[in-house]
Amino acid sequence: MERVSSLPFPASVYAARLERAGALAAEAGIDAVIVGPGPDLRYLLGVEGDTIERLTAVVLGPGFEPTIVVPRMELAKVRDTAAGELGVRIADWVDGEDPYALVVGALPAAGGRIAVSDALPALHVIPIGDRVDARLELATPVLREGRMIKDADEVAELRRAGDAIDAVHRRVADWLRAGRTEREVAADIAEAIRAEGHETVEFVIVGSGPNGADPHHEVSDRVIEDGDVVVVDIGGAVPSGYNSDSTRTYVVGSPTAEQAERIAVLVRAQQAAVDAVRPGVTAHEVDAAARQVLADAGLGEAFLHRTGHGIGVSVHEEPYIAPGNDLPLREGMAFSIEPGIYFPGEWGARIEDIVVVTANGCVRLNNAPHALASVG
Amino acid sequence: MERVSSLPFPASVYAARLERAGALAAEAGIDAVIVGPGPDLRYLLGVEGDTIERLTAVVLGPGFEPTIVVPRMELAKVRDTAAGELGVRIADWVDGEDPYALVVGALPAAGGRIAVSDALPALHVIPIGDRVDARLELATPVLREGRMIKDADEVAELRRAGDAIDAVHRRVADWLRAGRTEREVAADIAEAIRAEGHETVEFVIVGSGPNGADPHHEVSDRVIEDGDVVVVDIGGAVPSGYNSDSTRTYVVGSPTAEQAERIAVLVRAQQAAVDAVRPGVTAHEVDAAARQVLADAGLGEAFLHRTGHGIGVSVHEEPYIAPGNDLPLREGMAFSIEPGIYFPGEWGARIEDIVVVTANGCVRLNNAPHALASVG
Repeated sequence: MERVSSLPFPASVYAARLERAGALAAEAGIDAVIVGPGPDLRYLLGVEGDTIERLTAVVLGPGFEPTIVVPRMELAKVRDTAAGELGVRIADWVDGEDPYALVVGALPAAGGRIAVSDALPALHVIPIGDRVDARLELATPVLREGRMIKDADEVAELRRAGDAIDAVHRRVADWLRAGRTEREVAADIAEAIRAEGHETVEFVIVGSGPNGADPHHEVSDRVIEDGDVVVVDIGGAVPSGYNSDSTRTYVVGSPTAEQAERIAVLVRAQQAAVDAVRPGVTAHEVDAAARQVLADAGLGEAFLHRTGHGIGVSVHEEPYIAPGNDLPLREGMAFSIEPGIYFPGEWGARIEDIVVVTANGCVRLNNAPHALASVG
Repeated sequence: MERVSSLPFPASVYAARLERAGALAAEAGIDAVIVGPGPDLRYLLGVEGDTIERLTAVVLGPGFEPTIVVPRMELAKVRDTAAGELGVRIADWVDGEDPYALVVGALPAAGGRIAVSDALPALHVIPIGDRVDARLELATPVLREGRMIKDADEVAELRRAGDAIDAVHRRVADWLRAGRTEREVAADIAEAIRAEGHETVEFVIVGSGPNGADPHHEVSDRVIEDGDVVVVDIGGAVPSGYNSDSTRTYVVGSPTAEQAERIAVLVRAQQAAVDAVRPGVTAHEVDAAARQVLADAGLGEAFLHRTGHGIGVSVHEEPYIAPGNDLPLREGMAFSIEPGIYFPGEWGARIEDIVVVTANGCVRLNNAPHALASVG
């Protein structure tokens, strides 16, 4: 229900984040940044937006005080966030009024370079674009910088989330067995995700047998059978809004020799990518490390997706650990390492941990056993 | 977890929706419409997008065959939707490739008038805008027309959702009592929302005592006290993806005379708005009908928001029943009627039903008793 139950950090943390965003905008030559609801606004001020169609947005930039445009009926809630604690200037509006005029009024000028946050929907992007004398650009280069590099308090929250999801994986054997449907198993897992300390369940994937061969299968009414390989990819947000995301592959009963062998290769591929992580290495190189192990074993074609994605106040964010991404890794970046192998119509497997880049390498935030676990 | 478990309607329904969207685009002089994940894509093809950052979009318009741009790893899922059943042309891509080039390739020409769906995030709107020789506009006028007018099968799904949420309201007295927290009551309600036939819980608001005075309060750890007026605003989606949304106001024990009197006025205001609904009346006039009853009783200032919002495959959509909205109502429109009164620091109340416009008036899809119910 509620996404975040209370402000996880002191107001000074948000003040620093806002100031940093302004400084990064200045560096990039951006005159103003318009940040709508989504992970960027959650990160900057702890603000959620209630509805898509009613505009909530912070206008910030170099050399002027930020303003938050907010529907009056959401004012009380906004006052409980860092926006309230920091006394951010409020421009409120009621149904029937024009919130875009308030956005324009908060800009230093209607021209110049104006950027918008990734998540702002076209519903608001287009009318803002129609009212300013500028071609809007993406604020990603300005906003991702802060969110990508986690400080010690953020890492502590990600660790809390990681421990909670590990505790769920350690109990999967209690629920996963032949004769139950994926959906039944997923319901037990969802309950445990909350019970182990998450506030929200963000996703529960239970991909059994051939369903595991579709990397984005969620759940179905398929009855799990003896001998099924089962992909369990699960995550949630702890009360501060930081997320977990971890995948393990299970087998009901015993695997075939081929399955056991291929999954052992996958575990090595995942380890190779983890081993490749350190400051200065590119996201591409980490991806390539996993890909190479699989290719060497003749499994290159079975790996259909990127190796990972950043994680924080959203489940998927920068940096993306993908082919062609030449972004050099830096200390404090947090992301998943999750190679997978998929054999359409037959079975699939994926192993996923969240790692945080340290001065010399990385630490894993997920530590449930990686090897194929036999259940049932 | 899953938003929609299977295609709720036969493929011919989606074929007709696609064709209608093309015809409406032609009427509006739009050369192409780019529809990203969200209610529009769910409505047109039964397609959900898995991730925000990986582009899924349908490009459609007058005089050319639609194309769906989709990440290869989501292909299997897209093939299970109407896009697969109708043989919509697929342009798939893998991580590291440029999906925007595929969008541009699917357009009849890079110039002309190009519109995007409401929900498409800036992350995709801006790069598409950078690659086409046109100022993007909103596809809302083209896409809302189909979604706003519900056919008989859609009304049946909304009715199924309405019956399910009514069944939950009829059980609220089992859980709502002094000494429990809002969060505990909300957990019981969430479980019942699923048990009564919804596939997902979309929101659970339990606003007790002073929390009820904030129209968008969700839940908290506040312990409910004897004498509290409690706003319970709840909804979910049935397996077809259609939503419920209904609010009732309860009192733990007995209300004060003033509370009873004011809530009786609110019930009359809600009824007045329902009575005002028929084809040709504007959304503004329905809003004004509720507003007038409250104003006449000296409660005009306590009503802080619009009277309602459309509902369908999303919880909030057109038509919005708001001051200044001169849209004339038409048969088949479905929306909420939910006036509320809010007394900051003290208490609040709201009554909400979904109605569907008929040839001569409207039908209510929510029929749990409207009057203030005493519980505990």
